[in-house]
Amino acid sequence: MTEPKRFIAVIGGSDCTPEEARLAEEVGHELARRGAVLVCGGLGGIMEAACKGASAENGLTIGILPGGSRQTANKYVRIPIVTNLGEARNVIVVKSAEAVIAIGGGYGTLSEIGHALRNGIPVIGLNTWSLSRDGQPDDSIVLAKNPADAVDKALKAINEPV
Amino acid sequence: MTEPKRFIAVIGGSDCTPEEARLAEEVGHELARRGAVLVCGGLGGIMEAACKGASAENGLTIGILPGGSRQTANKYVRIPIVTNLGEARNVIVVKSAEAVIAIGGGYGTLSEIGHALRNGIPVIGLNTWSLSRDGQPDDSIVLAKNPADAVDKALKAINEPV
Amino acid sequence: MTEPKRFIAVIGGSDCTPEEARLAEEVGHELARRGAVLVCGGLGGIMEAACKGASAENGLTIGILPGGSRQTANKYVRIPIVTNLGEARNVIVVKSAEAVIAIGGGYGTLSEIGHALRNGIPVIGLNTWSLSRDGQPDDSIVLAKNPADAVDKALKAINEPV
Amino acid sequence: MTEPKRFIAVIGGSDCTPEEARLAEEVGHELARRGAVLVCGGLGGIMEAACKGASAENGLTIGILPGGSRQTANKYVRIPIVTNLGEARNVIVVKSAEAVIAIGGGYGTLSEIGHALRNGIPVIGLNTWSLSRDGQPDDSIVLAKNPADAVDKALKAINEPV
Repeated sequence: MTEPKRFIAVIGGSDCTPEEARLAEEVGHELARRGAVLVCGGLGGIMEAACKGASAENGLTIGILPGGSRQTANKYVRIPIVTNLGEARNVIVVKSAEAVIAIGGGYGTLSEIGHALRNGIPVIGLNTWSLSRDGQPDDSIVLAKNPADAVDKALKAINEPV
Repeated sequence: MTEPKRFIAVIGGSDCTPEEARLAEEVGHELARRGAVLVCGGLGGIMEAACKGASAENGLTIGILPGGSRQTANKYVRIPIVTNLGEARNVIVVKSAEAVIAIGGGYGTLSEIGHALRNGIPVIGLNTWSLSRDGQPDDSIVLAKNPADAVDKALKAINEPV
Repeated sequence: MTEPKRFIAVIGGSDCTPEEARLAEEVGHELARRGAVLVCGGLGGIMEAACKGASAENGLTIGILPGGSRQTANKYVRIPIVTNLGEARNVIVVKSAEAVIAIGGGYGTLSEIGHALRNGIPVIGLNTWSLSRDGQPDDSIVLAKNPADAVDKALKAINEPV
Repeated sequence: MTEPKRFIAVIGGSDCTPEEARLAEEVGHELARRGAVLVCGGLGGIMEAACKGASAENGLTIGILPGGSRQTANKYVRIPIVTNLGEARNVIVVKSAEAVIAIGGGYGTLSEIGHALRNGIPVIGLNTWSLSRDGQPDDSIVLAKNPADAVDKALKAINEPV
């Protein structure tokens, strides 16, 4: 019996900078190299870049789609899940993962960070949101220095939960 | 024909401080006095305090419940909506409102702020999250000085969209 | 303290015959006359006819919308709930009611009947589906002779659960 | 480039007869032999039997879970999708498939049949519901003689849509 696969989500927007796409693609590479399954929202931007990276290493990619058709998945998604739930699918992306890597991101990504932290799912951040409440910084998002570090920290958070 | 009702959500956690509960109750009062319908997640803490305030002024209160039973609603909810969707119901709370008032709040509230901003629904904040990206503050959450000011700003944001 | 309101769903398609619309409108009338709150999917056809009937008697009408905008509700919906969940909102329509009245209906209505029976929520039928398994009729859908009888049977099923 | 995989759902209850489980397991076998990916609700009964059959042929199995934990999946699920949506996940099971094979089944299965037919997704039936409206049988469910025939008909329905 082989060790069970790890499921790690990459979250980030459909719109992203070239630098953010580069980070996402490298995260995808690293995830596949370590044998992890990539979970994402299945669309373009960060999601497509991460799937592209994972595909290049023959990794398994799951796209949990907001729309009602599998044709909306980016071309690197091997397992399209068709929810037709709009953004409510963000909760499924997060809960189907054991750790989440947030890259850049707009308000949809912010909602996913909230859902993940609410569920005790570790969030690793690359160029993403910073949070504070009442002037006190909230450091629940674990900052990563680069894509390999993000994947290291995600796997470590799964294997050594706080 | 009377003017259509305004639907305004109050978002915040089941756990809250007495001061946050006081703010929420006063927001509920103000909403009902202005004839607005209160939308919330239907549970305790901030949600119950807001419903209590609205009820005292005979306001209409809608509770969009995460669980599968109407019995889980707080006693001030007049319209329980039973979703059984867990936190995915957060999206419905937000989208069923024309503006959102966030009070205190944990990570669930953060997810709702993300969903609201993603949908262009104005967010008014009382003692809630502050956001920044790449060291740049994001000032999309409109800060309110007190409950009456929060309700003023919510109604103004609906009637005078940016 | 007044007795709590009863919540009863009327389910049926956006497309319906004039006779089915007449039945739905009369069910709406009867529900409002008895003080029950009408829950429905908020769109046209059976849903609109039922809301029209309830409105004529000043009844409260809730529309649990599949789309992402309150503008999609029919004009007799007083409480629009904006889910953006597509047909997954069918589960919410059913679970937010204490009994369900099915009128005519296509496959969406069939899915709602399945969800209701699965949850032990009584289903009263007017010109709707008949079910059988392995050649054995399933008589879980309580047949009504007319709209008033349907509302009688729905209220009776709530007050005297099997 | 290899031909894309076909995604076929097997729907049926957690409670089933030994004969229904045997049918489901054989359907799982056949799906895997033809290279199709099995989509299901991820729990026991029909779902587990189908996954067991597919696993024996090294097929890929996706379990779209109603609960909030991946631990609730049956042991033959290779890709657990954690929705926490309760029965609203039935819509996702159906929409993530190109055809649906219904085996036995209770009211949850009936809801899935309704959702599938509503979406124009072919439904193949083995010992499952029969439908009629106004005394007229509805023959939208394609009857299969046995598991191999069910898989044949599902693949045929995908490749030669009406």
